[in-house]
Amino acid sequence: MGSSSAAPWKQLLLSSIQANSHLKHYSYFQLATVASNGRPSNRTVVFRGFQDDGDKILINTDNRSRKIDELKHCPFAEICWYFTESWEQFRINGSVDVIDGTNPDPVKLEQREKSWFACSPKSRLQYMAPTPRLPSLSELPSEIPSMDPSIGPVAAFCLLILDPAQIDYLNLKSNERLIFTSGLSSDGKKLWTSEKVNP
Amino acid sequence: MGSSSAAPWKQLLLSSIQANSHLKHYSYFQLATVASNGRPSNRTVVFRGFQDDGDKILINTDNRSRKIDELKHCPFAEICWYFTESWEQFRINGSVDVIDGTNPDPVKLEQREKSWFACSPKSRLQYMAPTPRLPSLSELPSEIPSMDPSIGPVAAFCLLILDPAQIDYLNLKSNERLIFTSGLSSDGKKLWTSEKVNP
Repeated sequence: MGSSSAAPWKQLLLSSIQANSHLKHYSYFQLATVASNGRPSNRTVVFRGFQDDGDKILINTDNRSRKIDELKHCPFAEICWYFTESWEQFRINGSVDVIDGTNPDPVKLEQREKSWFACSPKSRLQYMAPTPRLPSLSELPSEIPSMDPSIGPVAAFCLLILDPAQIDYLNLKSNERLIFTSGLSSDGKKLWTSEKVNP
Repeated sequence: MGSSSAAPWKQLLLSSIQANSHLKHYSYFQLATVASNGRPSNRTVVFRGFQDDGDKILINTDNRSRKIDELKHCPFAEICWYFTESWEQFRINGSVDVIDGTNPDPVKLEQREKSWFACSPKSRLQYMAPTPRLPSLSELPSEIPSMDPSIGPVAAFCLLILDPAQIDYLNLKSNERLIFTSGLSSDGKKLWTSEKVNP
């Protein structure tokens, strides 16, 4: 068991990303939330990197999707990220900050805008599509919309920022498992402890 | 929108399994549950097939793992199964029956025994390993245990049977999404309705 102020699991995760980066799906993971009826929800989302140089994880989503209501009801989520090439699993749980265009914090709105412009013009278009999960009314493919690439985030664009509290790392090749847990140091800084546990 | 007594999503899922079966990880999916503190949990598990000819999904697990307590607290789960080759996602939610060796129902115990013998001798050995998630005390690899292949399920072996209530199918190549929902017909049989919705 050791402790550290830098996130010791982050280097492990960056190595896994590197080892699996030749696979198209390497950046996909599953995000579990809890619905207002107390039941679990689970869906695949795309890793959009870390916030600045920290350990908070960025995810883009549609403000009209069910996960938004779920996260407003229960702000906790668990990522399960399985790397198919290296046989490694990261279970990352923490609280999620939901940042849409109505957020009162200018710093957060700036981060949302930064994430919007980091998206490809093609992926920005999906936020102009009809409301997810509503009945599909047309048999015909809808008109392909176009968007001025200089236009800022549209109303449906929402940024999620997951602040990790615990990481459960499992390596199925070496059969090793590590649990990383965050706490606070005496001066109020995030401090990580790690422990080797049975797989 | 249509309705059917046979599970119409099952053929779709079997086709995806077929299309992805050359990949080692095709049978892995993520199972989300809710912990007793109300927060979500998420981990990768292995698809062990359907029960008999029905639509219930079999999963093997260790009776000492946290998901058992979670499922006893909240019996609902959501599977997220993403097929990396065909770009299809199945979100399958339903209730989970937890069947360990203390189950009073002889039919369920028989199903548990059947699932045990369907495991490879090597995968049966993991249920003899030290308790998952407890501190790993030894720096040395533990002795490789051996097991008489004719011996029935050990105490740690637990069968989960998920009874699907709703399936949310998304195809990222065709950009199509279908929701399958179960209900009951007038004679008490499970009846499936399906609806095409916006992706």
